[in-house]
Amino acid sequence: MKRDLADYPVVVEIPVAWGEMDAFGHLNHAVYFRYMETARILYFEKLGIPEFLGRDPVGPILGAISCRYRAPLTYPDKVSVGVKVTRVEKDRFVMAYVIFSHRLDKLAAEGEGILVCFDYRQNLKAPVPEKLKGRIAEIENLKEGRCC
Amino acid sequence: MKRDLADYPVVVEIPVAWGEMDAFGHLNHAVYFRYMETARILYFEKLGIPEFLGRDPVGPILGAISCRYRAPLTYPDKVSVGVKVTRVEKDRFVMAYVIFSHRLDKLAAEGEGILVCFDYRQNLKAPVPEKLKGRIAEIENLKEGRCC
Amino acid sequence: MKRDLADYPVVVEIPVAWGEMDAFGHLNHAVYFRYMETARILYFEKLGIPEFLGRDPVGPILGAISCRYRAPLTYPDKVSVGVKVTRVEKDRFVMAYVIFSHRLDKLAAEGEGILVCFDYRQNLKAPVPEKLKGRIAEIENLKEGRCC
Amino acid sequence: MKRDLADYPVVVEIPVAWGEMDAFGHLNHAVYFRYMETARILYFEKLGIPEFLGRDPVGPILGAISCRYRAPLTYPDKVSVGVKVTRVEKDRFVMAYVIFSHRLDKLAAEGEGILVCFDYRQNLKAPVPEKLKGRIAEIENLKEGRCC
Repeated sequence: MKRDLADYPVVVEIPVAWGEMDAFGHLNHAVYFRYMETARILYFEKLGIPEFLGRDPVGPILGAISCRYRAPLTYPDKVSVGVKVTRVEKDRFVMAYVIFSHRLDKLAAEGEGILVCFDYRQNLKAPVPEKLKGRIAEIENLKEGRCC
Repeated sequence: MKRDLADYPVVVEIPVAWGEMDAFGHLNHAVYFRYMETARILYFEKLGIPEFLGRDPVGPILGAISCRYRAPLTYPDKVSVGVKVTRVEKDRFVMAYVIFSHRLDKLAAEGEGILVCFDYRQNLKAPVPEKLKGRIAEIENLKEGRCC
Repeated sequence: MKRDLADYPVVVEIPVAWGEMDAFGHLNHAVYFRYMETARILYFEKLGIPEFLGRDPVGPILGAISCRYRAPLTYPDKVSVGVKVTRVEKDRFVMAYVIFSHRLDKLAAEGEGILVCFDYRQNLKAPVPEKLKGRIAEIENLKEGRCC
Repeated sequence: MKRDLADYPVVVEIPVAWGEMDAFGHLNHAVYFRYMETARILYFEKLGIPEFLGRDPVGPILGAISCRYRAPLTYPDKVSVGVKVTRVEKDRFVMAYVIFSHRLDKLAAEGEGILVCFDYRQNLKAPVPEKLKGRIAEIENLKEGRCC
């Protein structure tokens, strides 16, 4: 698992709650998106998003997200959720997620989200701010010395 | 059911979602609180709470809530959630809830919540505003011509 | 909206709950997956999935799902969620979802899910049962007289 | 906090998820019940409930639960949820909960639940099994050498 997460600069551990299982006796499929959100918010904090928003009214919003289920999760378990930015484009960037099960010791799910930069004053898509690009590069560099 | 809800001036219908069941195959016990919240918010709208807050920085916050489970709910079903104010005290009022199952045609749960009035400027409990008391009386009167 | 949903043989109406909004003041992004699940389960009922499972231990499991967000949803609102099968392959079929906002009178989100047929006895992927294919064709034909 | 939790034989740490906050920007009030459930399930495991159920078809079901809110929780935070059995009666026992905020370093909420013993074969309330009583006494004794 450590090797699989080595490529992810932000990783968060989340205990699986019994009540997150549904009537099939597995973690409900929507909960995986809650887990990815927790990792995304942590990445945003490292990006200093609230700070950016103070000076610049352009911030990322979730445009799309997907999840591919690899192995069902059940309580009791703990997951490690890794997130990284895999691509920065003109007005958006792409985040990749992995959810590892500690109990199964394997990948339980993978996801991908598209974050679109949005100018809240003008209510329009906007280019990814240069400072944000720089900060993403710094975070992604932490793991292996190269920019995304 | 109609007779049982006759005493509740605010009633909301909510479809039970399959995904709200847990691994026991019943509606998860925490979801009943979500259902009561939905009824409470609707009552607040009828009270004109946001409007009150515009003119007066005193508003109710949930101090405590309880639920007594009478019959397990399962998908598919629809519930009717009734709410009424049963008591107004100096700095708080009490709301009673009932959750009726359409499929079982009986009471599935009962609840009670305490709403404490809070002055958001002073960060202190505050007396229930007179206008709010009057509005509660109006709503409760709707059902049977007597004040709470 | 009616025209937009005409192509979807299964449509379910869901009231947006206040408590489904997150700290951004919008419907939390994971809740859209709960809404799609509600429509999927209804489609499964129309397919007679539990019945199929009684005679045949092969049933569909969610292999992947995605959502594209078009417009933020807020309470109060009601959504209509439409679902249809767009493709049947050897061991899987694809479901497309739309979520329409009644208040905004427009598309709030679109999704796509991949349902993989699974033999629960052998713990292996399995071909889509012929009876299931036939039932899908019947349901999809309901809307416009052609098979998927 | 450590002193406050000393009286609770079962304590579980739960990270507050950003997505558990509602549009008021606080942890949604229903989530406290999810947190209490997580502690309850852990206590049940220590009681060996599934094991008991294997030999004896009598098990506890949640009859009622309440929560008193002391301080609003917000992300980021971690809570410690403590649970203990405070009373055993003929056909039921009472569990008390506390939810401590690590960030606020104070009590965020207190709760109480009533667990009713139920005979799943006869669909009737049943006396608390002697073995279960004994196991509860053992767990509660762990903390301070006296039975409940």
